Amino acid sequence: MNKILLEFEYVGTNFAGFQVQPNKRTVQGVMEELLSELLREPVKIYASGRTDAGVHSLGQVAHFETEKNVTCGQLLNNLNKQLPPDISVKRVEFTDPNFDARFSTKVKTYVYKFYLSRYPRAIYNGRALRVNDNVKIEPMQDACKFLVGEHNFESFVARKSGKTNFVRTIYSAEIYRENEDLFCFKISGNGFLYNMVRIIMGTLIEVGAGRKQPEDIKSIIQAQNRALAGKTVTPEGLYMHSVKY
Amino acid sequence: MNKILLEFEYVGTNFAGFQVQPNKRTVQGVMEELLSELLREPVKIYASGRTDAGVHSLGQVAHFETEKNVTCGQLLNNLNKQLPPDISVKRVEFTDPNFDARFSTKVKTYVYKFYLSRYPRAIYNGRALRVNDNVKIEPMQDACKFLVGEHNFESFVARKSGKTNFVRTIYSAEIYRENEDLFCFKISGNGFLYNMVRIIMGTLIEVGAGRKQPEDIKSIIQAQNRALAGKTVTPEGLYMHSVKY
Repeated sequence: MNKILLEFEYVGTNFAGFQVQPNKRTVQGVMEELLSELLREPVKIYASGRTDAGVHSLGQVAHFETEKNVTCGQLLNNLNKQLPPDISVKRVEFTDPNFDARFSTKVKTYVYKFYLSRYPRAIYNGRALRVNDNVKIEPMQDACKFLVGEHNFESFVARKSGKTNFVRTIYSAEIYRENEDLFCFKISGNGFLYNMVRIIMGTLIEVGAGRKQPEDIKSIIQAQNRALAGKTVTPEGLYMHSVKY
Repeated sequence: MNKILLEFEYVGTNFAGFQVQPNKRTVQGVMEELLSELLREPVKIYASGRTDAGVHSLGQVAHFETEKNVTCGQLLNNLNKQLPPDISVKRVEFTDPNFDARFSTKVKTYVYKFYLSRYPRAIYNGRALRVNDNVKIEPMQDACKFLVGEHNFESFVARKSGKTNFVRTIYSAEIYRENEDLFCFKISGNGFLYNMVRIIMGTLIEVGAGRKQPEDIKSIIQAQNRALAGKTVTPEGLYMHSVKY
C-alpha cells in the first residue's frame, strides 16, 4: 500500500466548501473524482481540515492510499493538466504509513485579507473583506498580542460547533500590509475551532473601529462567552495558508 | 450641460472587453445601461481608452454629459449599490467642459502581473500570467531601461492596429515584486499602441529566459519590425492602472 501526500491550492468562490456533498461542487469531490479516474480505482482523500464555501486555500494538505504504482511527478503533471483552473497541485510525494494529513498537523496558519474602503472594490470581490475606512490598524495590531499563547477560545467558536475542548495554542498573530490596499491578519496555532479565525477577525475589527479596546481581547477570552466577541466575518477574505507536520 | 468624470475599477474576466458590442457583456454597456436608468435619459460614456476581453482596470476614467441635475456623492452611492460586483466606482465629480477623458490624457500607466512557476496556480487564474520558473528577473529589469524615452514602437504593435504614428514616449518602466509570488511590470507613457504592453511583456520574458539580451530591446525598437519582438502575452495579467490628465 502506498500512502501519498498532496499539497494543493484553490479559490473557494465557486465551491460549496471542501467536503463532499451530494450534487454540489466541492474541492474534495473534484479532487477524488479526478484521482479515481487517473488511478482507475476509487480514491478517498483525507485533508488537514475542511474549509467552508467561499474560503480559499494556498496550501491544503491531504493524503490518500492506493495499491497502484504511482509516479509522483507524473501524477502531479496529470492532475495539473486535468484539474479545473480554480484548483492547482503544488506537491505530490510518498509519505510515511503513519502520516495522517488531519491528525499529524503540528501548526496551521490562516490568513484573513481585508481592505479599508467606503465602497466595495471590484478587484477584491470574493478575495478580501471590505472594512470601513474609519477603522484604525494600529489598535488591531495591539490586540493581536493578547491572542498568543494557550487559551480557552470558547468565546471565539460558532455555537453549533459541537466541540467540548476549546483550548488551543496560538503561536503568532499579526496584521501587516500586503500591498498598497490590502492588509493581512495572519494567525498560526496548533489548531482552530469552527469559525474561530472569522470570529477573531470580526472582533479585531471592533477594536479597529474603537468600539472595543485592544486589552478587551483578554477579558473576552476569559469570559468564555461567544456573545462578547465580534461577529463572524464573511468567508471571502479567509485563506487556509499552510500546514506544518 | 453638466460634464461628469467617473473613475472606476473592473475585473475583466467576465467581460467581452470595454467597448459596447451587441449581445455581449461589456464594461461600457453595463455602465451606460445603469447610468441611463439612474438619470432617466440615454447616457453615453467616453473613456480614456478601451481594454480587451480579460484585461482589468484599477482606474479607468470616463466622462459623460447630461442635462439632468446630478449630485455626485449620490450618484457614486447609487452606482456602487447597483453595479455588478466586478465593477466598482471610485470617483464621480463635475469636470471642465473642455475635459475629454480620451483626448486630455497626459500619462497612462499599465501594470502586467506575472508569477514564476512550473504549474499554473489557481489563485492567480485570470489575474496574472504564469511564466516558467527558469526565467530570471534581473535581465528583464535591465531590459526595461531601454524602453524609456521617445521611440517609434512599431515593433511592439499588433499588425492589424491600423495606426500610422508609432511614436510614443515612455516615462518609466520597471519590474518589482508585489508579494512573495507576484512580479509586476509597470510602465507609464504618454500613450500606448494596440497590444503594446502585452508585446513588450512577451519580449521581456524572452530576455528573462535568456533567448534575448537586455540590449536587444534597443535594436528591436530600431528595426520597427513586429517579427523581432516577442509574442503577445495573454490579457489576464494586464491591468490598466491609472490615467493622469
